[in-house]
Amino acid sequence: MKITDMGDRILAGDRRALARAITLVESGRADHREQATELLEYLRPCGRQGLRIGLSGTPGVGKSTFIESFGMMLTALGLRVAVLAVDPSSARSGGSILGDKTRMDRLSRDPMAFIRPSPSQSHLGGVARRTREAVALCEASGFDIILIETVGVGQSETVVAEMSDLFILLMAPAGGDELQGVKRGIMEIADIILVNKADGDLKPVATRTQADYAGALRLLRKRPQDPEGFPKAMCVSALEENGLQTAWDEMQTLSGWRRDQGFFDQRRADQARYWFEEEVRQTLLAQLTAPGPLRDKMQALGTEVAAGETTPSLAAQEMLKTLGLSHG
Amino acid sequence: MKITDMGDRILAGDRRALARAITLVESGRADHREQATELLEYLRPCGRQGLRIGLSGTPGVGKSTFIESFGMMLTALGLRVAVLAVDPSSARSGGSILGDKTRMDRLSRDPMAFIRPSPSQSHLGGVARRTREAVALCEASGFDIILIETVGVGQSETVVAEMSDLFILLMAPAGGDELQGVKRGIMEIADIILVNKADGDLKPVATRTQADYAGALRLLRKRPQDPEGFPKAMCVSALEENGLQTAWDEMQTLSGWRRDQGFFDQRRADQARYWFEEEVRQTLLAQLTAPGPLRDKMQALGTEVAAGETTPSLAAQEMLKTLGLSHG
Repeated sequence: MKITDMGDRILAGDRRALARAITLVESGRADHREQATELLEYLRPCGRQGLRIGLSGTPGVGKSTFIESFGMMLTALGLRVAVLAVDPSSARSGGSILGDKTRMDRLSRDPMAFIRPSPSQSHLGGVARRTREAVALCEASGFDIILIETVGVGQSETVVAEMSDLFILLMAPAGGDELQGVKRGIMEIADIILVNKADGDLKPVATRTQADYAGALRLLRKRPQDPEGFPKAMCVSALEENGLQTAWDEMQTLSGWRRDQGFFDQRRADQARYWFEEEVRQTLLAQLTAPGPLRDKMQALGTEVAAGETTPSLAAQEMLKTLGLSHG
Repeated sequence: MKITDMGDRILAGDRRALARAITLVESGRADHREQATELLEYLRPCGRQGLRIGLSGTPGVGKSTFIESFGMMLTALGLRVAVLAVDPSSARSGGSILGDKTRMDRLSRDPMAFIRPSPSQSHLGGVARRTREAVALCEASGFDIILIETVGVGQSETVVAEMSDLFILLMAPAGGDELQGVKRGIMEIADIILVNKADGDLKPVATRTQADYAGALRLLRKRPQDPEGFPKAMCVSALEENGLQTAWDEMQTLSGWRRDQGFFDQRRADQARYWFEEEVRQTLLAQLTAPGPLRDKMQALGTEVAAGETTPSLAAQEMLKTLGLSHG
């Protein structure tokens, strides 16, 4: 298919063209990369924007149930919902890729929804670029909401936050001690903390947990991009479909305020610049590790350095000369 | 001075030549870098090794008092002691650079000791390379012990651990709650935790703190490079000079065992390779931020991307073409 044809079909909302285009951006082949770049540039002027919602939650918090319930609520409101995933571990634990769709049984059969599992790449940088470009494709295809989920292993929350307009942290009800386990970094990027499973026997624990998180959030310094009362912690029950509408109202309040204040566009602009720079940096560094004479030389010099036959500094000078650079 | 003359004087233990050489490796000038590289290569075949002890402790734990007491004990044993510092903040809080020497009054006047403040660079990568090269110069100059201290801000402990044979964490006596504040990462790189100020009223608290850390260390998975009983937590009093000999005995036991098992040499080999690779990577990336046409182009493209006039992918492709690279 010609790239312009593929682009036109995506703009017309064709699902199969969208799925093929995502496969194209996920490819590691050089000619596919050229085509992907051409396609993204072709779609850029359409200017369609969805709301990009990043969602992180460790296994066991009920993330799939939440996405299913929340997604179904959004489609019932007439919104088109795409679900993408950033899961750097998916290359290894292959089972979870297929799992996504089967665990979101209703949503995956909803014609207003589109679910795409994480690209099977073991390298987080690769997953990041592919997911970010899939987000752009879904927006061009007319989706109103792009949910980008991650399991929150290592740096993946930061990566998802860097491509989202809002970042939601889904948590399970927990005792006071377990609160300590939340990484400080993630508290600082969260816009809304949702304590899930606020149902049945867990309801009182969920309420206490929500109060604890609310207290912890108040201790953080206020960010300019937040209106009064944000970031906030709330209770939801994905199982009983309670609190989802309120959560959605809060997300709209927050994103609306940020749009009015200019923070929404500013964040997107900063993110686009960041991803451009990151792509240049990663490609520069990839020279050293991609199979070929540079990697071989890098390894040979590394072995000499390790054996004490040369100094790190002299070896670096030689390697940099090969790369056409002088030693700074 | 000719580089070979400077090298010969360092090998002969000349302090002024050592100090000048450290100034040379700390310089940012390209011709100085060439000379520094030549000097390090000239000194490499001498093969002299000191024991590199990394030491981290936040302000208030009594780090200067500890270095002074511990250093004086080592020089009394006939060992030559060099003290270097990695302090990425020193460029800003200029006062602390001079502070080092005045706070270590006795040690700085000891002819067996050499104290060098942190190079005044705001960039941690720059401080790291300069300190690592200063370590090599001190070893060539015949120092038996190289103490590399850091305040433990941000990533600086990891940087120091990457250039040390042993990593010591100095802690203050503290209540149970404060134990939570220790970063998990640093527990995992510590070989010995010394709870300082085990004197006077604080002695019982120090003993409890030591027991708490010992318990926490037992929860960590055993590392192959540790003999039975390591990593361990101990009490010391730098003020009363108590426990310092025992701490030194433990350091010798640990480093001796690692030497016998081959872990000592393996770690040095891995570290040398790491620093070679890091230097190549940092110089590659520095092209994008050093003043010049590449930085200008990077900024211009970044502005276009931020304004939505091009995609991150297309802009990266153009930038990479300028760098003579194809888009991976």
